Amino acid sequence: MPTNRQVLIRSLPEGSLAAENYELVTLEAPNPAAGEVLCRTLAISIDAGSRAGLQGSASYAGAPTTGIVMNGTVVARVEESEDDAVPLGSIVTCGAGWQDYSVQPAADLTVLSDEVDPIHYLGLLGGTGMTAYFGLLDITDPQPGETVMVSAAAGAVGHLVGQIARIKGCRVVGVAGDDEKCRRLVDELKFDAAVNYKNAGFRNELKEVTPNGVDVYFDNTGGMVLGSALFRMNLNGRISCCGVVSQYDTSTPEPGPKGVPGLLVNKRLKMEGFLVFDYADRYPAAREEMIGWMNDGSLVPWIDEVVGLENAPTAFVDLLAGGNVGKRVVRVSA
Amino acid sequence: MPTNRQVLIRSLPEGSLAAENYELVTLEAPNPAAGEVLCRTLAISIDAGSRAGLQGSASYAGAPTTGIVMNGTVVARVEESEDDAVPLGSIVTCGAGWQDYSVQPAADLTVLSDEVDPIHYLGLLGGTGMTAYFGLLDITDPQPGETVMVSAAAGAVGHLVGQIARIKGCRVVGVAGDDEKCRRLVDELKFDAAVNYKNAGFRNELKEVTPNGVDVYFDNTGGMVLGSALFRMNLNGRISCCGVVSQYDTSTPEPGPKGVPGLLVNKRLKMEGFLVFDYADRYPAAREEMIGWMNDGSLVPWIDEVVGLENAPTAFVDLLAGGNVGKRVVRVSA
Repeated sequence: MPTNRQVLIRSLPEGSLAAENYELVTLEAPNPAAGEVLCRTLAISIDAGSRAGLQGSASYAGAPTTGIVMNGTVVARVEESEDDAVPLGSIVTCGAGWQDYSVQPAADLTVLSDEVDPIHYLGLLGGTGMTAYFGLLDITDPQPGETVMVSAAAGAVGHLVGQIARIKGCRVVGVAGDDEKCRRLVDELKFDAAVNYKNAGFRNELKEVTPNGVDVYFDNTGGMVLGSALFRMNLNGRISCCGVVSQYDTSTPEPGPKGVPGLLVNKRLKMEGFLVFDYADRYPAAREEMIGWMNDGSLVPWIDEVVGLENAPTAFVDLLAGGNVGKRVVRVSA
Repeated sequence: MPTNRQVLIRSLPEGSLAAENYELVTLEAPNPAAGEVLCRTLAISIDAGSRAGLQGSASYAGAPTTGIVMNGTVVARVEESEDDAVPLGSIVTCGAGWQDYSVQPAADLTVLSDEVDPIHYLGLLGGTGMTAYFGLLDITDPQPGETVMVSAAAGAVGHLVGQIARIKGCRVVGVAGDDEKCRRLVDELKFDAAVNYKNAGFRNELKEVTPNGVDVYFDNTGGMVLGSALFRMNLNGRISCCGVVSQYDTSTPEPGPKGVPGLLVNKRLKMEGFLVFDYADRYPAAREEMIGWMNDGSLVPWIDEVVGLENAPTAFVDLLAGGNVGKRVVRVSA
């Protein structure tokens, strides 16, 4: 049997997450039984939302536990199969978590098409891309000519949201945490503007780049950036609440923005949270549209690859500090 | 000419509003020109939302000014008419503000039906009632069997919201600021439960009276009660943001609730603000339905009448402190 490295949750973080909250162990890879397959992990999706699962209180990511393999979606190759429906060599996605090998029930697996690089099933075509697609289009219904603002704009979800909004004919303004990210959003992804929320003049800069206000705000962060967006929103604006990355990596979250609910009333705003799993039956059609945009060059997916399973903890800690540009994945094997 | 008493805004409040922010002056009543009528004020609507118009920053109530008649909707009787379309003796509503007499363009007036006591055009059939009707039914679409929670439940809007929800087959839970109000909501208006947010055990009591959680929350207050509601909301819950009475009468508003936007995401909640004026073209149909409910006894409108124009300032200050039960009006003449 091959050896299997696993990254376990050693302890729950108090304050910020650290690589020391994880430990790497090595054991024998498991054997698939009838109806199961052995999956070799090719790459792991690193998601800010997973941080919520490490909080002391339960969240949508479930109650936290130690001593288990860190959770995560992966793309994998089938290396042993005890089920004819999923032959050897198939490429699949599954929730294997942070390890080299896992045994999966064949019935739970979808064999991926080989028309696109499988890595995109962790980004554009995975939960990340579906989140951008439905969270923007279904929750906010952006119209041509409207201004769409997105926070964590260089992140896995944000860089797709901005591009989808641009494809829909909107003016797109991104907010990110460093000047180089802002430059790349404008130069490489054709955002109309991008501003750095860490600048002292952020609120004024945001005002300058949204001369007609903001009709749609896609919120990945909560906190101060949400508060600033509320002041720029136009009448009948829509806010899609996707996540709270500014608040995940702490034991002492900020209070909510002052404009809630006063500005919601004055401006007739709608704020709506969503979870992408609710749209699962519409993923196939969304993926088809996303592949079309990627193939014609109107949508550029950024993949931010870190090599080596042993580096997954630092890759995650760095992501929470805003170190990623686009979709961060950990490459485990070729 | 009759004399006309006017209540002027003498100064803008710093901190809480006080009767001393107003002054009473007496002058001659104006003369109507061609196309105008002279209106004698019968009663004035006292609205918490008017407090927002006295803030240092502009709100939906407009920028604040001193030296002008305090704004307010009134019901009035036409005592002189220079327009045949509005004959002497007609009962009308208009934005006369806090004074005995005003001249109004006849073309702006709607002559009220004499089928109902005109005072209801300040409550059930006025902006207050329309706010309850559209803010509940259009924004949240409550379904039979769902639990509807409302804050400032004994207030002008709240006591109607709860009754409309009950008529729609919902379980209704009110939140108010004293035990006697809570008792009356249950005994007289048939709320399923009412809890006093000033009690130390408020959060536990709220939990006890919402054993199946909260599907719809009608928020008149913002602040702590909104924060508590967020924790009781069910998946796919809807929050109608109607006003922020907890925050009007202060220069130092509280921060927003901690659950925003985190709980919106986890529970797929929708929060939506509205202003009732947007529904003006549907008022006639709504009024017809409200009159039907009042006439068959399923909806009981509470009128809280203070007598005397000179008492309008204290009636307003007291309202902001939660002194009213139901719709507060100031009776100016018979």
